[in-house]
Amino acid sequence: MSTVNLDEILEFAVEIAHQAGKAITEGSETRFKNAAGFDEKKNTADLVTETDQNTEKLVYEAIQKRYPDHQFIGEESWAAGKQAKLTDAPTWIIDPIDGTTNFVKGFPFVCISIGFVYKSEPVIGVIFAPFLGYLYAAKKGGGAYMTSPLHPERRSLPLVQPPPLPSFKQALIAFEWGSDRSKEVMAQKTRTFERLTGDPASGVEGGEMALGVRSIGSAALNFAHVASGSLDVYWEIGCWAWDVCAGMVIAKEAGCAVVGSKAHAQNAVSSSWPPVVSPEVLTGRKYLVVRAIGDKEGKVDADAQKRIIQTFYQAVDEWDPK
Amino acid sequence: MSTVNLDEILEFAVEIAHQAGKAITEGSETRFKNAAGFDEKKNTADLVTETDQNTEKLVYEAIQKRYPDHQFIGEESWAAGKQAKLTDAPTWIIDPIDGTTNFVKGFPFVCISIGFVYKSEPVIGVIFAPFLGYLYAAKKGGGAYMTSPLHPERRSLPLVQPPPLPSFKQALIAFEWGSDRSKEVMAQKTRTFERLTGDPASGVEGGEMALGVRSIGSAALNFAHVASGSLDVYWEIGCWAWDVCAGMVIAKEAGCAVVGSKAHAQNAVSSSWPPVVSPEVLTGRKYLVVRAIGDKEGKVDADAQKRIIQTFYQAVDEWDPK
Repeated sequence: MSTVNLDEILEFAVEIAHQAGKAITEGSETRFKNAAGFDEKKNTADLVTETDQNTEKLVYEAIQKRYPDHQFIGEESWAAGKQAKLTDAPTWIIDPIDGTTNFVKGFPFVCISIGFVYKSEPVIGVIFAPFLGYLYAAKKGGGAYMTSPLHPERRSLPLVQPPPLPSFKQALIAFEWGSDRSKEVMAQKTRTFERLTGDPASGVEGGEMALGVRSIGSAALNFAHVASGSLDVYWEIGCWAWDVCAGMVIAKEAGCAVVGSKAHAQNAVSSSWPPVVSPEVLTGRKYLVVRAIGDKEGKVDADAQKRIIQTFYQAVDEWDPK
Repeated sequence: MSTVNLDEILEFAVEIAHQAGKAITEGSETRFKNAAGFDEKKNTADLVTETDQNTEKLVYEAIQKRYPDHQFIGEESWAAGKQAKLTDAPTWIIDPIDGTTNFVKGFPFVCISIGFVYKSEPVIGVIFAPFLGYLYAAKKGGGAYMTSPLHPERRSLPLVQPPPLPSFKQALIAFEWGSDRSKEVMAQKTRTFERLTGDPASGVEGGEMALGVRSIGSAALNFAHVASGSLDVYWEIGCWAWDVCAGMVIAKEAGCAVVGSKAHAQNAVSSSWPPVVSPEVLTGRKYLVVRAIGDKEGKVDADAQKRIIQTFYQAVDEWDPK
C-alpha cells in the first residue's frame, strides 16, 4: 500500500471536482432529452442520467491515472455490481451527481461529492455545486473551507463564530422525503415531521416546533450547509456512503457532530465527544448532523449538540431503508 | 395619475434590486447578532431583522424620489400599519427580504422581491437573490428573463423549450411548511402531503406519488424556479401579496399558470386560459403555480397544466391562513 499525502489528494480532489462540475453544467443542456425517458413505473425519484455515468467515468479515470492502486466506490459502479468493498486501503467514495432529480429538472442544488477514506476513516471531502459555484473542501485535522462566486477567497467553515442554539425552537432543520413512499414509511415520516415541527401548545403531542424545515434534494449539500452553519440540523434515512462521505469530513472539520442511527446516537452522547465516524456510521444509511454550537462566550458547547441530538431523535420514528 | 413607462420602470426595478441585494449581503454580516434576539414564544418562523427594515427603506426612498406619486406596499410598512390599499394607482408591492429565516441563518435562498401593479394588475416583477447572484425579471407582454454568475447573459424563461409533463408522478413540487404549526393545520398539511407524495400501490389513499418535494423557504424564489422550469409546481397557503407579486409576473410571462384557491382554480380551468391574475388572486393568500408545459411537438399544452392543477388540488386539504 502506498503512503498517502492528504494535502496532495485534497488539491487533486478539488481539481477533479471542478472538471466534473464543468461536465455537469455542460451535460445539463441535454437533461430534457433524458427527462423524456423517465420510467414512470418505478424509481421515478431515483433517476440515472447519462451525465451521471459520464461524470463518474471522468472522475474514475482521472483517479486511476493518478493513483492506480487506490480503490474506488461510486454510485454508478455500485449499482452495476462493480463496487469495491470498504477496506483499510485508500478508497475514493464518490457520487458523481448528488441531487440527480434536481439535475434532471434544472434545479440548482446539484453537486459532485468526492470523499476519500483511509484506514476506514473518511479523511478528505470535496463538494462542488457547479450551478451555484459553491465549493466546500476539508482534510482531516486541517479544517474545512468554502469558496463561492460572491466570496472567491477561501473562508473557513463554519462561516461565523458558532452562535448558541439554546432551544430546538430556533433550529432550521433539513429533511428529505426520499423515494420510499410506501404507506408505512410515509406514516412514519409524517408522524416524525409533526413532532419535529408541531406546536405542543395547540395539542401536537411531543411537538418540538422547529423554526423551519428545508428540503433541497441533495444529501451532500445538506451536510455542506450544516457545516457552513446555515442549517442547524440535517437528518436522513436511506442515503448511501457516497452521498455523505465527503460531507461527513467537511462537517466534522467544521465542528459539527455527525451520528448514525438513534441507537448509535444514544451511545455516542454518553461516550467521548465529538463522535468518531466509524465505517458502521459511514455505511449505516441513517445520518444526523448538528452544526457547531458555541456558548455565549463563543466556546464550543458540546452539551448543546447533545441536547439537540436527543431532542431530535425523541421525535423520530425510525425505519430501516430499503 | 401619471402615465407609466413599463420599460423604464423595469430597468429601474432591476437597478434597485441590485442595490438592495448589496444591502442584504452586507447586512448578513450582522445576522447572528440579530439571531440572538429570537423571540421564542411566538413567531419564531417569522423573523424581522434590521436588514429587512433597512432594505425596505432604501428601496422605498429610491422609488419615492423617482416616482413621487406612486403607491407603495411593503411587508415592513404593512406590519407597521402604514400600508397603502390596493387601488388602480401605480403601486409597488415589495418584500425587502423574502426568506427572512434563511437570511438570519445564512441559508442562501434569500431574495428581494419587487412587484409593480398598475390598474390592479401585476405588470412588472423583479426577483434578485444576492447570495446566488440569480436575477429574474419580467414585464407584462415582454417575456421574462434571468441572469446568473454562470450565465451573465440574459436568458429567456423558461430556460428550455417546455418539456411535456404527462403525469403528476414526474412532477417536482415545492411546498413550504410555514409558521402555522397548530395541530389542526399540521394534520391538514401532512394529509395533503401524504396524498401528493404517497404510493397508492402500497395503500396510500389518493396517493399521487410526485417525483420529489422541495422546500427552500422563499415564496418568490419558488415562483422564479417554476418560471425557469426547474420546479414543476409550487403551492402555498399563507403568503402575502408582497411574497408573490413579482413572482406572479415572472411566472405568467414564462408561460406558467397561476391560480389561487381551490375554488378559484376550479373556476379557472373551465374559463379562458391562461387565467388572469386578479386582485383577488394576488391578495388571496392561496397560490398554485404550474410551469409552462409543452406537448411532444413543443406546442403549449394548456390541458396538461389544467390536469396538473386538478390532480394537485384533489390532494389538498385547504385551510384558511391566519
